[in-house]
Amino acid sequence: MKEIIAIIRPKKMAQTKNVLETLGFPAMTARRVMGRGKQRAIIGEVSFDIQEPELLEEKGSMSYIPKRMISLVVPDEDASLVVEVIMRVNHTGQIGDGKIFVCPIRDAVRVRTDERGESAIA
Amino acid sequence: MKEIIAIIRPKKMAQTKNVLETLGFPAMTARRVMGRGKQRAIIGEVSFDIQEPELLEEKGSMSYIPKRMISLVVPDEDASLVVEVIMRVNHTGQIGDGKIFVCPIRDAVRVRTDERGESAIA
Amino acid sequence: MKEIIAIIRPKKMAQTKNVLETLGFPAMTARRVMGRGKQRAIIGEVSFDIQEPELLEEKGSMSYIPKRMISLVVPDEDASLVVEVIMRVNHTGQIGDGKIFVCPIRDAVRVRTDERGESAIA
Repeated sequence: MKEIIAIIRPKKMAQTKNVLETLGFPAMTARRVMGRGKQRAIIGEVSFDIQEPELLEEKGSMSYIPKRMISLVVPDEDASLVVEVIMRVNHTGQIGDGKIFVCPIRDAVRVRTDERGESAIA
Repeated sequence: MKEIIAIIRPKKMAQTKNVLETLGFPAMTARRVMGRGKQRAIIGEVSFDIQEPELLEEKGSMSYIPKRMISLVVPDEDASLVVEVIMRVNHTGQIGDGKIFVCPIRDAVRVRTDERGESAIA
Repeated sequence: MKEIIAIIRPKKMAQTKNVLETLGFPAMTARRVMGRGKQRAIIGEVSFDIQEPELLEEKGSMSYIPKRMISLVVPDEDASLVVEVIMRVNHTGQIGDGKIFVCPIRDAVRVRTDERGESAIA
């Protein structure tokens, strides 16, 4: 099992989720984060929907921008497909396209049914 | 060391934390997430305390609902106990009971004392 | 590759980010969490900028306090430097200094360029 963690633009969330759901990956969690990569962020994007003024203030001279982090746990054999799909939907070629990380997951449990391992995420 | 990540119902947070604290696991972090599993969420639950309208709007036709994600780092030998306790407290048999993931953690540091490894989480 | 996850005081965020950026680690994500360690939190700190009243209410008798969680993915050889730097900036010797976790990351992808592995985070 692998956890696929993608940090993407907020405006790419709906499309990313819809495509993943269509392909059979509806289970995920999403959260707001403030992020930046190596490059300074595009200032224009900062004006987009800041609802956490303190986080912005904390950044001082650094240009952190709001991002969405989505996380899916998938069987090993689906990991590369999910990565490629997220890549395809989120690639614009512009700074700020985001990053994807692949992390090992040792086990999963579905609380409702007590299923373990891959059947918990099937 | 293992990180136990549980995605649970908001209304199960207090009980889950209290039981874990009583059993000797008081150290954890909690965060809000929007999540869904394979099944469409129960609409009634969506009306519960939405404070992130943008995330809801982003979901489009998908039924994401507010969840809480808790995370604990525990010694290997405590991982199964913590999983079972979270299972027991959160199991209702209804859709939306949540998921638990177990992830490897390589090392931990307590910043105050510079303790490393299992003593950092003891 | 390793993910360095640090749970620190909100007021240490700006300094931590600035030092890491100066040392060549500008890429990170940040998020708000509620956390506590083994010790009960210092009550005075709770009055600092609570913007998630529901999370506070959920805690019941437990003293959760607002923390910031920062996350960086770095090459293996930089992991100990990043840990030591975060330690140095965040150590006050007082309860609440925070924790740092080191997690294995299997792969990384930069969406804009399709770079993989360490070049995705270079």
